[in-house]
Amino acid sequence: MSKLWGGRFRKQAADLLRQFNDSLPFDQRLAEEDIDGSIAWAKGLARAGILLKSEAAQLVDGLEQVRREWSDGSFEIEAGDEDIHTANERRLTELVGPVGGKLHTGRSRNDQVGTDFRLWTLRACDVLDQQLRDLLTALIDHAETHCDIPLPGYTHLQHAQPVIWGHWLLSHFWPLVRDQQRMRHARAQADELVLGSAALAGTAFPIDRQALAADLGFSRISENSLDAVSNRDFAADFLYASAMIGLHLSRLSEQLILFSSSEFGFVRVDDAYSTGSSLMPQKKNPDTLELTRGKSGRLLGNLVGLLTTLKGLPSTYDKDLQEDKEPLFDAYDNLCIILPVMTAVIESLTLRPEKMAAQLEPGLLATDLADYLVKKGLPFREAHHVIGQVVQTAEARQIPITDLTVDDLKAIHALFEEDVRQAFSVEGSLNARQVIGGTAPVAVREQIKRARQVVGDG
Amino acid sequence: MSKLWGGRFRKQAADLLRQFNDSLPFDQRLAEEDIDGSIAWAKGLARAGILLKSEAAQLVDGLEQVRREWSDGSFEIEAGDEDIHTANERRLTELVGPVGGKLHTGRSRNDQVGTDFRLWTLRACDVLDQQLRDLLTALIDHAETHCDIPLPGYTHLQHAQPVIWGHWLLSHFWPLVRDQQRMRHARAQADELVLGSAALAGTAFPIDRQALAADLGFSRISENSLDAVSNRDFAADFLYASAMIGLHLSRLSEQLILFSSSEFGFVRVDDAYSTGSSLMPQKKNPDTLELTRGKSGRLLGNLVGLLTTLKGLPSTYDKDLQEDKEPLFDAYDNLCIILPVMTAVIESLTLRPEKMAAQLEPGLLATDLADYLVKKGLPFREAHHVIGQVVQTAEARQIPITDLTVDDLKAIHALFEEDVRQAFSVEGSLNARQVIGGTAPVAVREQIKRARQVVGDG
Amino acid sequence: MSKLWGGRFRKQAADLLRQFNDSLPFDQRLAEEDIDGSIAWAKGLARAGILLKSEAAQLVDGLEQVRREWSDGSFEIEAGDEDIHTANERRLTELVGPVGGKLHTGRSRNDQVGTDFRLWTLRACDVLDQQLRDLLTALIDHAETHCDIPLPGYTHLQHAQPVIWGHWLLSHFWPLVRDQQRMRHARAQADELVLGSAALAGTAFPIDRQALAADLGFSRISENSLDAVSNRDFAADFLYASAMIGLHLSRLSEQLILFSSSEFGFVRVDDAYSTGSSLMPQKKNPDTLELTRGKSGRLLGNLVGLLTTLKGLPSTYDKDLQEDKEPLFDAYDNLCIILPVMTAVIESLTLRPEKMAAQLEPGLLATDLADYLVKKGLPFREAHHVIGQVVQTAEARQIPITDLTVDDLKAIHALFEEDVRQAFSVEGSLNARQVIGGTAPVAVREQIKRARQVVGDG
Amino acid sequence: MSKLWGGRFRKQAADLLRQFNDSLPFDQRLAEEDIDGSIAWAKGLARAGILLKSEAAQLVDGLEQVRREWSDGSFEIEAGDEDIHTANERRLTELVGPVGGKLHTGRSRNDQVGTDFRLWTLRACDVLDQQLRDLLTALIDHAETHCDIPLPGYTHLQHAQPVIWGHWLLSHFWPLVRDQQRMRHARAQADELVLGSAALAGTAFPIDRQALAADLGFSRISENSLDAVSNRDFAADFLYASAMIGLHLSRLSEQLILFSSSEFGFVRVDDAYSTGSSLMPQKKNPDTLELTRGKSGRLLGNLVGLLTTLKGLPSTYDKDLQEDKEPLFDAYDNLCIILPVMTAVIESLTLRPEKMAAQLEPGLLATDLADYLVKKGLPFREAHHVIGQVVQTAEARQIPITDLTVDDLKAIHALFEEDVRQAFSVEGSLNARQVIGGTAPVAVREQIKRARQVVGDG
Repeated sequence: MSKLWGGRFRKQAADLLRQFNDSLPFDQRLAEEDIDGSIAWAKGLARAGILLKSEAAQLVDGLEQVRREWSDGSFEIEAGDEDIHTANERRLTELVGPVGGKLHTGRSRNDQVGTDFRLWTLRACDVLDQQLRDLLTALIDHAETHCDIPLPGYTHLQHAQPVIWGHWLLSHFWPLVRDQQRMRHARAQADELVLGSAALAGTAFPIDRQALAADLGFSRISENSLDAVSNRDFAADFLYASAMIGLHLSRLSEQLILFSSSEFGFVRVDDAYSTGSSLMPQKKNPDTLELTRGKSGRLLGNLVGLLTTLKGLPSTYDKDLQEDKEPLFDAYDNLCIILPVMTAVIESLTLRPEKMAAQLEPGLLATDLADYLVKKGLPFREAHHVIGQVVQTAEARQIPITDLTVDDLKAIHALFEEDVRQAFSVEGSLNARQVIGGTAPVAVREQIKRARQVVGDG
Repeated sequence: MSKLWGGRFRKQAADLLRQFNDSLPFDQRLAEEDIDGSIAWAKGLARAGILLKSEAAQLVDGLEQVRREWSDGSFEIEAGDEDIHTANERRLTELVGPVGGKLHTGRSRNDQVGTDFRLWTLRACDVLDQQLRDLLTALIDHAETHCDIPLPGYTHLQHAQPVIWGHWLLSHFWPLVRDQQRMRHARAQADELVLGSAALAGTAFPIDRQALAADLGFSRISENSLDAVSNRDFAADFLYASAMIGLHLSRLSEQLILFSSSEFGFVRVDDAYSTGSSLMPQKKNPDTLELTRGKSGRLLGNLVGLLTTLKGLPSTYDKDLQEDKEPLFDAYDNLCIILPVMTAVIESLTLRPEKMAAQLEPGLLATDLADYLVKKGLPFREAHHVIGQVVQTAEARQIPITDLTVDDLKAIHALFEEDVRQAFSVEGSLNARQVIGGTAPVAVREQIKRARQVVGDG
Repeated sequence: MSKLWGGRFRKQAADLLRQFNDSLPFDQRLAEEDIDGSIAWAKGLARAGILLKSEAAQLVDGLEQVRREWSDGSFEIEAGDEDIHTANERRLTELVGPVGGKLHTGRSRNDQVGTDFRLWTLRACDVLDQQLRDLLTALIDHAETHCDIPLPGYTHLQHAQPVIWGHWLLSHFWPLVRDQQRMRHARAQADELVLGSAALAGTAFPIDRQALAADLGFSRISENSLDAVSNRDFAADFLYASAMIGLHLSRLSEQLILFSSSEFGFVRVDDAYSTGSSLMPQKKNPDTLELTRGKSGRLLGNLVGLLTTLKGLPSTYDKDLQEDKEPLFDAYDNLCIILPVMTAVIESLTLRPEKMAAQLEPGLLATDLADYLVKKGLPFREAHHVIGQVVQTAEARQIPITDLTVDDLKAIHALFEEDVRQAFSVEGSLNARQVIGGTAPVAVREQIKRARQVVGDG
Repeated sequence: MSKLWGGRFRKQAADLLRQFNDSLPFDQRLAEEDIDGSIAWAKGLARAGILLKSEAAQLVDGLEQVRREWSDGSFEIEAGDEDIHTANERRLTELVGPVGGKLHTGRSRNDQVGTDFRLWTLRACDVLDQQLRDLLTALIDHAETHCDIPLPGYTHLQHAQPVIWGHWLLSHFWPLVRDQQRMRHARAQADELVLGSAALAGTAFPIDRQALAADLGFSRISENSLDAVSNRDFAADFLYASAMIGLHLSRLSEQLILFSSSEFGFVRVDDAYSTGSSLMPQKKNPDTLELTRGKSGRLLGNLVGLLTTLKGLPSTYDKDLQEDKEPLFDAYDNLCIILPVMTAVIESLTLRPEKMAAQLEPGLLATDLADYLVKKGLPFREAHHVIGQVVQTAEARQIPITDLTVDDLKAIHALFEEDVRQAFSVEGSLNARQVIGGTAPVAVREQIKRARQVVGDG
């Protein structure tokens, strides 16, 4: 076995064990939130008369110094620092002396983990909210700029009816609006103060938890200490919202990948978001979109992982819960790349209307032809049947249905008249769909207005 | 191969294919919603002047007749009925004649599927909301009745600190309150009219979609027809809420299973919810709780199944979406058993306070002893260390820490005084935790009040 | 609430509970296996001297009668039949009298569940093995018949290099061969006798378990009774193999859906496996393929469900394990449709070589041009760079690279000579790849031979 | 927003994009395998006459130098190194000059990724195989040392029948044996040479792929180049085997956590594998076991993530596949801690036979009492019923069934005689179960022998 593979085997059990139990490698991301929580707690202890004001001030000063050390990179991790909480308290005590030992009065690590992780989630939700908003805005802007370009609409990936680009692109806007709501729901779940729950039974000191909540920016407080130390619902909600974003972006990506194939050719992904091949000099691959699509798996995996970890847990706090943070960090980090990159992809996307137009074949208008007959009084089911014959007739002659003459049509059904020509146009088809949510340009412009209002931009 | 196994092999490909594509075996559950949607559409067509009022009336009468046939079991499925929509329209046309062929004017099957499924989901959410409410009430009632019975609180399944039954049981109340919110979020997602989207581009007839929404009880309408026919977010939200309910009930079940073991013996599950063994005459197994715990897997599986199906779907409506309904039906059917059964289990649960009391060993009061020293001015970290010595001293003498004399304690630290006796009581420990959310009886009674308010019962 | 929705609410708790605990609605599928297991057990008891031979004969006769009743549909389920085991024993005792009460000697329901479910799984694996074999054969046959038709090969869904149809289609053959291995691995896991484990500790009667295994066709026996009653690994393995089949078929389906779009147009799915639109008369949708792709979600969901149910289970047999059967039944039933339907789709698939040819644009040959230079001695990295310039030159002139003259090429690099023309042909490109596994027709014909050997058809 | 949170926002899109596409941060783990693959390729090119032997030698020397730099930590990553392949080739070319540009002849990055990742997986499987073997050995050793200690056996977490420790512990041995088989199946899937597939169509140079396989230690070669570049089945198999290990260890952990609670108290987890509480001085928590149980979620999440990523992928190689490596690395790293730590936990586990004995209450012998009657000729179903009466009689008198006199028993059924006393002993119950796989000490010693044979230690 080579040196690169051998390392693991020289490790002592004790080292492995420390590596197993220690969470500092990942929970140091909570450094700032841990300090915020401790400052609030010190103030809370003073407010309750457990600490002298001067003691609390010493602690706060010390904690602010610790924060500066994390911020400027000078914080030094020591061997015994098993998690961010012990690391911060160890350093604090070095800085302020024995009074540091008073900070943990009436508080537990469970208090700290819950508080820090919730603060982190609130901040993460705020960042993602803004990034979603940027993407939503990019979608509206692109939809508006290229609003009226017609292209085939698809169901079953088969040509169905004509639609316009603005309509098509906004069909990916609304799912992300719903995801923004999901992420806000997750935020609202995280937005609850658990500090004061102590290990499980509630702190034995007369802490004003409402004041703590106000200090830390939580809008409500937990009602049951046993639930509080065990509750990771907000983490599940965050991962669910993340998985849904991943899902929706996988669908947008899939379609843009199709549209950028040679066969479709409807769009060009900007060179900046494509890559070449190590072997094939002519290739330009939409890697960015593929990777986005692929990451939907990971985001779902993170959700499944946490829910499975939580399944059947027996008591309030079990160490299993230490597995809660990494999936959120992973989901957040990935979304923090996917979302701005997708925004940039949309902003730089080039359309090729001539390729879209080339696919606007007359078959797309068959429904309009049926509607024409319906408006003349034929029951729809009969009209549908008649158009089936029209389609067969054209296929038998190997011509598009638009090349059938009015006489040809009359021969199939007497209700066809000269005005049928108008039903045969893409413009006519589009303009007929003026219902709210329809693809008529006038309806899509209304949709854009509502979309801007939703984003808070209207 | 036996006859029981051979059946499949005599099937023709055509039969298999019909079986594959047909959704009637499961979507006939939407019979009622499909009729509701069609009645609204018939009225909408009349309102728009596409149908005569008399035609619409004929259709409505016919549809009400079809509803009666489903309701009394006289509806006969025929060979060509591939889904509930074709079955209902086929029967309608038999009843009302050619005017039946006008019902589908300007509408698509995508419209129908989306509308029916959303109506079903709204109703399912309402049923589950009520069932959750019943369970929540049972939890409060039981918590209140047996509120002050002390038992050990656990972290890591190790004795931690004393808590009371009311507090413990309510720790399973709040998670279900959050699940009720999740289910309501899912309902709000379903609560959107999609009818009028037609196949994908919007209907070409001047339908008043706001009026349709009002008729069907939807509180808003979809903004983009391409999104509307493709959007199964509400189904995902429903399955996510279901999975979370499953998760929370798995944790409650796990704990009650532990508590009903011989070793714990804290509770007795009523005979009605236990079963015997085919082999061992003395057994009484908490099957109901085990099955509830086990079903958390299935509920998560349903979620994963749907999200994976949705991943990377290319166009608006793809037939893959036919896989959307069965997981919801399965989740709903299971919850409709799990929730009332769990309610009945809680209502009939017997407590064995003497078994709980037997486990209230003095080690549970160690934190209180530390708090005692803190209140005398010792920094917590030092107090924690001192109590560590107290615990070791007692262990060395093989006595509980409560058997140490005050002199023993003084020998360990000078701050111990006669009043330390009070810190050594379960009652003292409980009553100290009066903070909001704490386990002090007075705090738990406040918690019960808030719980009743949350359920709308306060 | 309507009558259709109201039903649930009139149910008594007792009914709900029975519905919850009873497994007969789904485990009656094990009727035959349960009888097989009981017959073997009766013989085993006689062999061990626990039953008289005449008693065993009575039991066997009675059990064969029960089997006939299931087979001809005359078996009548009664109210107390909670599962297939109690139903069969109840009916047996009706038929044979008190001796029926001796069958369960030294045996437990855990024994029966494990035995029946394993027998069922063995049979299910055998059926699926045959269905996989049929699909594998269809793939080889189609690949051979249309072997040499060239089409673009894709990476990143972008044109990469020419390949031939036989090669392309067989790229979906080998994954299914691996799945067949997975399913056989699952079968081998199921192929272990657990009967004789009793409830958990082993039967107290001197049963010859090796003889039991021989009677029932198991090739080995379980080594630990506690593991035996708890082990559902074979079920997980079955679901994993199913999920992998679903995954691979989702990829084949995805590609055939793309290939049957207007834009690609490479294949035509037979009308028998396509469906029309309720609204759009011109549509022909590849529903069968979409549904197959969609079902990959469900198959994965079944796996996740079972694994989550199994996670953290505390004791040997817990009632949670009752959740083991439905996911397998569901996976099996779906595969029993998907596999033969996919076989029929492949057998009836029509190719459109002219559409494939139309996409064989010169860019696909860029790698061959680089290889040309490499063969002249240029390091590959330089050749890759030179071809990049060739591609740019052609793009700047808006002509395909094949329209560049030899002089044009020489101007870019001196190594280009007249013989470069040969490098520019699809045939040349294909024939160059004669390595094992390559796309050269001669290599693909070798591949077909090996494929037939693998299927046992060579 | 604080500095710690602000970082992301100052990043340029280009930086984000590079971070998105680059895989070097994680795929540098493949450094060694990449070099192995390149050395084999260089030799293969020389063998085929594409390179001079001297050129190949230069490349090999250079690659060995690159390997040394990785090994001693002196390899310097540069800005353009997007993955391990480009990094190694860049450095090689610096070291050996232009001949470095010849290495990539006829090869693609897809070739390299597939080759490197398969080599890594083979090695990872070998490490895990050894670690599993260590754990299996620890289980056998502990089972043998403490073989005959009786404890209650459980089903439904209720007392069922007595078993012995050796039997109980080995019930966790056999599942891990099956996992070892799964991991070996995954290894066998990885054990296939894909090199020579080039981008997708096979290399255009006359490479002897069998020789390549021999050089790299693969035992067979891929049969279809399109499949070869797309096939990640081995990765899925690896993750499935990992998830099953996680599952089985979650069950072992769950039971040991229960057994180490105050209420059970059957085992003591060594202090080295327990941790204290920051708040409660008396606590000793089995963190190691809880974390192991919790990680089963993550291991399942990794599997779901990869399978979802693979679902519906359209072409041979898509960039989505870059998501394949991190879940395996994560699973491997976690197993490399969990397995040795669990081994150490088992090796250091202390039993408390007196606590086990205290739970061996007479109810555990009820089945034996029924068997007693069966041996006297009573049909089992009647015996089961009689014992039910015995249990009720004892319960009514509030005495254990062992305190009933023979006359009491005779009053219930005439078949009871003086010898019934023997049926009432734990030893009698244990010794009766001598069937293969049973809990009789003599049978368990046989089981231990077979277990040692399975591990290759017998």
